[in-house]
Parts: sequence; C-alpha cells; structure tokens
Amino acid sequence: MIPSEIIKQKRNGKEISFQQIKEFINGYLKEEIPDYQMSALLMAIFFNGMTDSEISTLVEVMLNSGEKMDFSHHSNFVADKHSTGGVGDKVSIILGPLMAAAGISIPMLSGRSLGHTGGTLDKLETIPGFKVDINLRDFRKQVDAIGIAMIGQTKEICPADRRMYALRDVTGTVESVPLICGSIMSKKIAEGIQGLVLDVKTGNGAFMKNIDEAHHLGNMLQNIGKSFNINTDVVYTSMDQPLGNLAGLWCEVQESINGLKGDGPDDTMQVTYELGAKLLLQAGISKTHSEAVALQKELISNGKAYKKFVEMVEYQGGKHQDIEKYKRLHQPDNHITIKSDKAGIIQSIDTYRIGLVTIELGCGRKKTTDKVDPTAGIKFYKKIGDPVKKGDTIMKLFNSDGEKLSSAENMTKNTVIIGNEKVEHKLILD
Amino acid sequence: MIPSEIIKQKRNGKEISFQQIKEFINGYLKEEIPDYQMSALLMAIFFNGMTDSEISTLVEVMLNSGEKMDFSHHSNFVADKHSTGGVGDKVSIILGPLMAAAGISIPMLSGRSLGHTGGTLDKLETIPGFKVDINLRDFRKQVDAIGIAMIGQTKEICPADRRMYALRDVTGTVESVPLICGSIMSKKIAEGIQGLVLDVKTGNGAFMKNIDEAHHLGNMLQNIGKSFNINTDVVYTSMDQPLGNLAGLWCEVQESINGLKGDGPDDTMQVTYELGAKLLLQAGISKTHSEAVALQKELISNGKAYKKFVEMVEYQGGKHQDIEKYKRLHQPDNHITIKSDKAGIIQSIDTYRIGLVTIELGCGRKKTTDKVDPTAGIKFYKKIGDPVKKGDTIMKLFNSDGEKLSSAENMTKNTVIIGNEKVEHKLILD
Repeated sequence: MIPSEIIKQKRNGKEISFQQIKEFINGYLKEEIPDYQMSALLMAIFFNGMTDSEISTLVEVMLNSGEKMDFSHHSNFVADKHSTGGVGDKVSIILGPLMAAAGISIPMLSGRSLGHTGGTLDKLETIPGFKVDINLRDFRKQVDAIGIAMIGQTKEICPADRRMYALRDVTGTVESVPLICGSIMSKKIAEGIQGLVLDVKTGNGAFMKNIDEAHHLGNMLQNIGKSFNINTDVVYTSMDQPLGNLAGLWCEVQESINGLKGDGPDDTMQVTYELGAKLLLQAGISKTHSEAVALQKELISNGKAYKKFVEMVEYQGGKHQDIEKYKRLHQPDNHITIKSDKAGIIQSIDTYRIGLVTIELGCGRKKTTDKVDPTAGIKFYKKIGDPVKKGDTIMKLFNSDGEKLSSAENMTKNTVIIGNEKVEHKLILD
Repeated sequence: MIPSEIIKQKRNGKEISFQQIKEFINGYLKEEIPDYQMSALLMAIFFNGMTDSEISTLVEVMLNSGEKMDFSHHSNFVADKHSTGGVGDKVSIILGPLMAAAGISIPMLSGRSLGHTGGTLDKLETIPGFKVDINLRDFRKQVDAIGIAMIGQTKEICPADRRMYALRDVTGTVESVPLICGSIMSKKIAEGIQGLVLDVKTGNGAFMKNIDEAHHLGNMLQNIGKSFNINTDVVYTSMDQPLGNLAGLWCEVQESINGLKGDGPDDTMQVTYELGAKLLLQAGISKTHSEAVALQKELISNGKAYKKFVEMVEYQGGKHQDIEKYKRLHQPDNHITIKSDKAGIIQSIDTYRIGLVTIELGCGRKKTTDKVDPTAGIKFYKKIGDPVKKGDTIMKLFNSDGEKLSSAENMTKNTVIIGNEKVEHKLILD
C-alpha cells in the first residue's frame, strides 16, 4: 500500500476499498502513516465524500481499533441517544435517567463543548465531585448496577476516532458528513447497544443548516445503525433558537433537574418525550407513541426519573445534598440584561452567534487548555413568535468574569431580530 | 492567525489574504505550523484553486523565503527555459549550451525525474564526475565565467518550495495548477533572469492532458512572469509520443550530444529551435524567427554550441575525454526488442505508460532512496504515423538489470497501437 496513491484515489473521486481504508487507518494508529497524510486524506474526503460502503468500512475499522462493550448478559433493553449538537440542548441529562427509570439501560458516552455548541460532559462536571473520566470496567459495572452511566470517551473505545477527531479539529475537516457519521456511529456501536435514537438538529444553530442536509445525515446514520443491527430512529428538531430557557453550564443542569421534577420548559420536554418515545417503542415497553409519552410523564410525576438521576450522580462521585440545594449552587458574580429597543414580535434568533456568546461567557473553550466557568450562561425571556414591548428584557447574561461578560454583551448585537410579522416556530420537524 | 481558520476559508472557496498566506507559509517554515495543517491547506487548494492575487502572493512569499540571485552586473541577457515535463525531453541539455554560445547567460536550476517523467539532473549526472550539487556562489561564478551552469535546487533558493514540494509529493497534491505555478515561478524568479521561455507539454505523456488545460497553465505562468518583470514566452508542444528517438538517462545525453553536433532527431531539434528563437528575440540578438533559427543552426554547424557544452561539463567536474568517446560509455548489459505483431500504421503511443517503463528500467525512482541505472533506456524505431510491417522492431529496451528488464517488457503491452488509419502528428501546437 502506497499512502499517497490512496489519497490520490479519493482526491480523484474514486472509491477506496475495504482493504485500503483498513490499512490506512491501522497504519495511522501504528504511526506508520503520519498525520500529514491522514489530514490530506481527510480533506479529500471532505470534498469528495464517501460511498455507503466506504462509510461502513470506516465505522468498522474505527470500531475495531478499540474495545467493544457487551451487555448481552443484561435482561434490559440497552440503548442510547445522540444529538448532533446545538445551543441549550440538555435533553441527554433528562432523557438518560428517565429511560433508566423506565427500565432501559443507558451506557452513554458523551462529548464536550465543540465549536459554538455546549457539551454534556462540561455540564455534568459542574456537579461538585461528579466524575466523567471512568474506566470501561467501572462504567460497565455501573450500568449493570443502576442502569445508567454518563461518561466521556475512554482510552479503550475507538482510539482511531480519538486521534482522527483531534486532527480534524485543527485541519478544517470537522464538517464532513461521512466523517461525522463515522465518528458518531463507531462510538455508539462500541457501547454494545441494541437501540439508538438520534436527534438531528437543523437550523441556524446546528451544523446542518437546512432540512435536506439534515435528512442526508440522518439517513446515513440510520443506514449505518441498521447495518450493525442497531434499531435506529431519527428525530429531526429545530435549532433555529436555543432549546429551553437557559444555555450554559450549571444553569442547564438546573433546568434539567427542573425537567426531571416536572417543571421543565415545554420545548425541552417535548423533544425529550419524542426521543424517549422512540426508545420505549424500540424496547417494547410501550405499544404506542401516546402510551410512551404518558409513561414518561408518569415517571417524572412519581419522582422515579429524578431519583434515578440522583442515584447516577452519587454513583459517579456527586452528593445528593448538592442536588437538593441545586438552586443555590454556582451563583454567578455578575449579570447583565439585554433589553428590547423597540416593540414588535421576535422574528428570528441567530443561534450560532448565541452559542458563541456562551463560549465567550466561559461555557466552552477557545483552546483545549481553557478553563470553563460553571456559573456562566444565558437566560432567554423571549423566544421566536413572542411579542415584546420596548424595554422588555430579552436575555440575561451571567458569569463570574466581568471582562468576558462585557465582550459577550457586545457579541449579542443583532442576534435577536424584532419585526412586525407574526411568526410560527416548529420544533419537531418532518 | 488561527491556521485551521485559514484552512477552512480556502476549503469554503474564499480568498486568502496576502497577510494570511505570508503568515501561514512563514509559520510553516519556522515549524510553528505543522505538516498536517499545511497538507490540509494544500489539498483544499487542489480542490478550490487560487485566485491570480493568491498565486502572486504565493510566488512572492516562496521567493522571499530564500536568496535571490542578481546578474544585473552582467552585460549579457540572462534567461532560462522550463518544460512542464515529458518523456524523452532532453531539450534543456541542447538548448542551454546553444543559447550560451549565442551570448545569452543561462543560470539553470533543473529538477529530477518526477512521476513518469525524466529529470535533467539525473541525465546530466550520468556524465562521469559531473556535479549538480553546487553552492550559490560557485553557481554565480560559473555563469559569470562561461555563461551557463546547470545545477539542482540549492538550499538557499526558495526553501519554502523545497519543503512544500516534498510534502506535496507524498500527500497527493502535486497536480494543482496554482501550486505548480508557484513552485516553478518562485525558483525561476530567484534565478535573477530577464527572460524565460516555457515549454508547456500537452498530451497523454504530459501532466496537462489537453490544450485547454495547457493554455490555462501557460497563461497563469506567463502572467506571473510578467508581474515580476520577466519577459515570458510560452510554447505549447505535443507529448503524445516521446520526444526524440531515445528516452532514458545516458542515452538521452548521447542524443543531446548528437543534437549539438548537428545530428539530432528532427522533432527534438524543432522544439529546441522554437524555444531558442523566443529567447533570441527576447534578447534582441535576432530580429526575426527565421533569423533566430538560422543563427542556432550556424552555432551547431560551426561547433560553438558543442564546445560550450564541453566547457560546461569540464567546469562542473566532467572530462572532455569522456564526452569525446560518448558513444562507448555506459553500455547496457541487456536489451530486448519489442516487435510489431501486425502490419499497419502507428496510431498512438501511450506515452505516460512508456514513461513508467523507463522508471521500471531504472531511469527514475519509485522511492527517493532508489538508485538509478545510467545505462537504462528505450530506443524508438517507429513513431506516430509511421508504417510498420509484421515483425518490425518498434522499440528496444535496455538496462543492466535483467529482472527489471523483463518486468519493463511486460509493461509495454498495448502501449503502441497499430491500425489502418493515416495519422498526422503535430509537434508544435497552437
């Protein structure tokens, strides 16, 4: 195998064979193929895409580069949820415990804040003592014991993806549908799950800007899932505005706890129930969509979902006392309100930019070495379609770093457009 | 400057600014930007091209990464010739001494065998004792003294190009018109020349497969030359069959000596005179094309061109005695003839494949550490349009490695197509 010939083949739009993909990626892992050849191949894939067969090979090779979990001894249905990322999306933190309370085991590997989007791991880590860096054996033990664990990618799982992802991040090759597919699905398959529900986000705050791109990605993910015998459903949801009333770190955990206690924002709960229904139907626990939604509401109102969350927090190093006084933890030192300069109706929200504002406030990293600020976030008082009067509060920004607060405030200019048209916003698409 | 943002900008088809190109390339030279980011940028350039302004910046930054020669003290017109590469193209070895004999100074930096094409340096090095690895000061001194030097790229000239070229070679990013332009022109401009003639090859043995691609490249090269105040002419010639009757290493030097002695093959001499005429007109030495051709023929028949060649050989470490007995040097141990299996007319020759056959014989390298075989080459007995009888010799392959000879023989299958149509072959195009 001559690496540069494989690069040229992809560059010229020709298919790469199973054997070639395998040798290239394994050669890369063994450091026989250097980063500069991998990054050239990744860029050629960005431009020329991959065929279904190539993507399937990519997933298989990345999957086989590490360990796979096995929950076949489990009597429960084993499943997971993945979102393609957005702003204010805390659904995993509500849905995971909720599903576990319903009797579905959830071995969830989550990610960190990426680009303008928030990361479940960064949010969970604001729970005092909460550990996301757990080895595979303890992870498995926890899922066996309580039916849920939410951790970060371990060294053992898909090392090829770890190295390729880090390289993509610095070589402008993140936004490639086949590479996104390979990265997501290899990790999900390694979890040893039987079912999967994918929340493919669309809109100005998502990686996929329109529904066609979203369908393209969704179909590809679903095909891969099926070819690995994973029952895979896709839900398409809007990311044309932040999800829920809060975006940030600890404030999103707070909003998730509210959700688990029956006091979550409508949009967040609607997405949660939609995704949860898919998994409950896959597992055969519910027979119909409405039955599945009713079961979820019941598990929230009878306190079982919240109880499962607290159980997970304690298992991963947190304390129930902290969760109980959750409204008083991580109080921000500073806040600033953004007010409406005219009357009208909220027409649109630049969600990508709002995501960048959260990063600026301290909810994410510009460099991997940056420290995040657990107190940082945004509260949204108005959403698309809401009427506003001049002087109404639209957003409140908060954190514990005055300098960052003021640069974040500057970035909010023109993110919320007010006009006179009546606007409807559809959350669950398609 | 964030390198990955510049990569993304080019990936998304946006222009990169002067400052960004400069910082990226200089950062790369200082090893602040790693190979993997440069190779991703190069692949993005392969796909999205570069604007005229970007190419001009690329040339300027690569040029300024090293030393520039200055021949402003010279009374002679200082010029050079460059070919985009082909099979059997030994024109530089004839044209250089011929132009020097006419009073044009030729500070020529040549290249090695690349892909399927031969390299002037590899050919010249088969002259016993001949050195191509000469420092810039000695190079300058030689041009001052005898009006010509033919050497390899030095450490001092365009170090950015050296490193980027080596990277392109192993990352599938050689065949990019803007990158080819940048690489060629930065080195030529660094030679401190006033005039330049470019032989842009077209056809199945050239990097440019059709005349439109060739014009695109030729125009781009000419524009860059003009913007750096270099009088630049472009000649388009066919590479649908090898140039001359011999392709290889020492055998091409032999054919060049024949040319300098007035006994060169018609096609090779026609290209030589065409290119030479452009330079003589640029220099004001000749007033018309026919006058320029007549002058060249005179310099060959009166022995001055050949004498200049011997002078250069001796200056660069060779011996005139070797040149005098040139027909007996580097005799190959083995040869094999390829015969026609039917009667007809030569319709076409797969020149790319013939180039690969010469590499297989030992005229080039598959890896940079491979040793070349000075005795290796091919003699062509029939060219496009020639009638053949069954059993006529079409080619003779020779070298001093029986194993390679036999694998090379296998590669010649179907390289020469015989049919019944009358075919004309045009050498000088456009």
